[in-house]
Amino acid sequence: MVFDIRIDNGIIITVNPAFEIIQNGWIGISADRITALGSMAQTRQPQAGEVIDAEGCILLPGLINAHTHLPMSLFRGLSDDLPLIHWLEDHIFPAESAFITPETVRPSTLLSCAEMLLSGTTTCCDGYFLESDVARAVRDCGMRAVLGQGVIDHPAPGVLDPSKNIETAQAFLTECISLSSRIRPSLFCPSPYTCSEETLIRTKAMCRETGVRFQIHVAETKWEYDHMMETKGATPIGYLDRLGLLDPDTMLVHAIWVDADDIERIVRSGASVVHAAQSAMKLASGIAPIQRYIELGIPTALGTDGSASNNTLDMFREMDITAKLHKIANQDPTVLNSRIVIEMATIGAARAIGLDREIGSIEVGKKADIIILNAARPHLRPLYHPASHIVYAARGADVRDTMVDGKWLVRNGTCKALDLCAVQTKVRRIADEIR
Amino acid sequence: MVFDIRIDNGIIITVNPAFEIIQNGWIGISADRITALGSMAQTRQPQAGEVIDAEGCILLPGLINAHTHLPMSLFRGLSDDLPLIHWLEDHIFPAESAFITPETVRPSTLLSCAEMLLSGTTTCCDGYFLESDVARAVRDCGMRAVLGQGVIDHPAPGVLDPSKNIETAQAFLTECISLSSRIRPSLFCPSPYTCSEETLIRTKAMCRETGVRFQIHVAETKWEYDHMMETKGATPIGYLDRLGLLDPDTMLVHAIWVDADDIERIVRSGASVVHAAQSAMKLASGIAPIQRYIELGIPTALGTDGSASNNTLDMFREMDITAKLHKIANQDPTVLNSRIVIEMATIGAARAIGLDREIGSIEVGKKADIIILNAARPHLRPLYHPASHIVYAARGADVRDTMVDGKWLVRNGTCKALDLCAVQTKVRRIADEIR
Repeated sequence: MVFDIRIDNGIIITVNPAFEIIQNGWIGISADRITALGSMAQTRQPQAGEVIDAEGCILLPGLINAHTHLPMSLFRGLSDDLPLIHWLEDHIFPAESAFITPETVRPSTLLSCAEMLLSGTTTCCDGYFLESDVARAVRDCGMRAVLGQGVIDHPAPGVLDPSKNIETAQAFLTECISLSSRIRPSLFCPSPYTCSEETLIRTKAMCRETGVRFQIHVAETKWEYDHMMETKGATPIGYLDRLGLLDPDTMLVHAIWVDADDIERIVRSGASVVHAAQSAMKLASGIAPIQRYIELGIPTALGTDGSASNNTLDMFREMDITAKLHKIANQDPTVLNSRIVIEMATIGAARAIGLDREIGSIEVGKKADIIILNAARPHLRPLYHPASHIVYAARGADVRDTMVDGKWLVRNGTCKALDLCAVQTKVRRIADEIR
Repeated sequence: MVFDIRIDNGIIITVNPAFEIIQNGWIGISADRITALGSMAQTRQPQAGEVIDAEGCILLPGLINAHTHLPMSLFRGLSDDLPLIHWLEDHIFPAESAFITPETVRPSTLLSCAEMLLSGTTTCCDGYFLESDVARAVRDCGMRAVLGQGVIDHPAPGVLDPSKNIETAQAFLTECISLSSRIRPSLFCPSPYTCSEETLIRTKAMCRETGVRFQIHVAETKWEYDHMMETKGATPIGYLDRLGLLDPDTMLVHAIWVDADDIERIVRSGASVVHAAQSAMKLASGIAPIQRYIELGIPTALGTDGSASNNTLDMFREMDITAKLHKIANQDPTVLNSRIVIEMATIGAARAIGLDREIGSIEVGKKADIIILNAARPHLRPLYHPASHIVYAARGADVRDTMVDGKWLVRNGTCKALDLCAVQTKVRRIADEIR
């Protein structure tokens, strides 16, 4: 056999640099890699151990959710329609301190992974606490991920004594690095105002030493902007810049409240921006100047944020809303077209998390992270432009098959990656306690 | 048998005036009506011919899509990311004049109906041309609808000679009134600037004589606002008011570009507003002051608009985006909470289209238009607040069963209302021509 798996007869949105779309194409997969692809008409397909028919389907590189908090699926819909500060202080923080334990992190992470795999996300970038437990759950289900241990100067799940936050982070990095080739460690500071200067600097230094991504929620709310101006005499981004935290390995999550100097700082540093449109809309945090970031070549990725603030991890919904939000915000229907938005959820996100040599497109040599959408459903008919359908018409539920690292984790809409029934039973029991 | 059908064990979001939610409830249906409902624990359920188990499911009144253009499913994704005027004049109008015929209207309408039924919409309010053909297709598939024949002073499909627009409308009203108890006729003017004063006045007069809804796209774009000010010396809404067109039977679709006097005119007249958030975002038309309309008690409904500008007819997506859009637009996460948004897609929409005594809620005496959602999927777990899940987490694909007028049109995710395969084959052939 030349290939382990061959996928035939699909419309392939490659997301290669030319954004090539193969109308009737095939992909050859050997072990965990894409080793060939072409058009059914033009190339003869060598033999394969398993041949999958994708007639009537659209193939995409697996989607990449560049920002989430996996265990927060426990709090999905627990409280909505509230101001950020009440939502956090009266609902989320108390629930986190009472219910986020090693025992609850595993099933809640697996629930999130099942939701992501079933809706076409093959890689996520997480930031939370008890991240070693998150990492073991993600490893076990077969997903790919960049996983960031939280570092904060308040008591947090697994780090009740904040003075131990740096050493906990160090231990996480050491443990996580050898867990699986699919998992990369990272560190995550929840905000510039919940970490001291020293904590921020030491966390970023540890990231630099280890060569891992530094994630931070920054410039999310007007309150944060005003607070930083008042307490530090700098904008949130200006403050991070002053501390020397901006470089190409830093992921700025939200980056909504920025001035012209901040944008210039981001450009100069090579840092990436992660946009979570739905979460920022739902919490009324603000609208990030994403069109401007894109014009300036800032690496820009999409993330769903945690499912407590969105309330799903469906990247199709995120793409659709992102495209529409920035059209209305810019009063220009031509901005964030379907190609740009798909890139933000695939190769752009891969760049932001530092995995663009491995994933983010369907190209020979890349990891075999591939999703197959059933495009025969009424809401996807007729089909003139596959990329348009992906952004404006498709939804997570259209995903038929999901492959990560050459392995099928979803087949025919069924999650093969884990025992979903057992996970949901555990989550229900925890939710009964929370309620 | 006391009931023809009984649905047991579901979480029922009644959308009654108190927005009561029955945690473990049952519904009795006799012929086309809801004849009883209660809690499984508190009331004994009389016998029924068919008993449906809705364990783990959420029941809602069928969703009402208050504004669409059914045959435009033919043009889904034909052109996107364009300014409204180019999109209309270079793509949509030419496609309409070449491809909208009685032969294409039937399959394209049926495709839209299938999409709506599968995603939980049981009633729609349409405005288009060749509406007799639309009406026969809708009648045949079993949906409920208010269907508006278009009246315009330009050549249109089925009315190549605009001087015949009024008599065509009159003929439509006569024919449609007796087609089915599920179908109510209406008239629809595409805009105040494509109809003369006389056409607008005569169309509304015909509506008044027949007691049917008058639908009009109005105050959709800045261009329209400026144009009306220039040519008529009035705002678009002010102009309609001057012509005497505003009353409780008038549906103002979009109503984005309004001033304080316009809002006062709408309140005084009792006219309703139909909001199509996604379409207005995608075309960058503007953001209607929906929160203000709601505060003032203006009947406000949701619609998807046609699938050429959205690009789906999924009311779950419309609810979610509407809630999020107005939170960010008002910089207030407490506005348009899940209850308000569900009401806009059910009882509020029923009010706007004049059917609130018959549909829009699950109450004894109402028509049996009911949907059952499978809430056991990972993205709907855990489940603390069913109304929150409906707006922020559920999607059309979660609809398991759809009942209209006491009949199952979708069972276990399969459309029983029509031969979907045959419809899709016809649509594909037409699309091949369009391409």
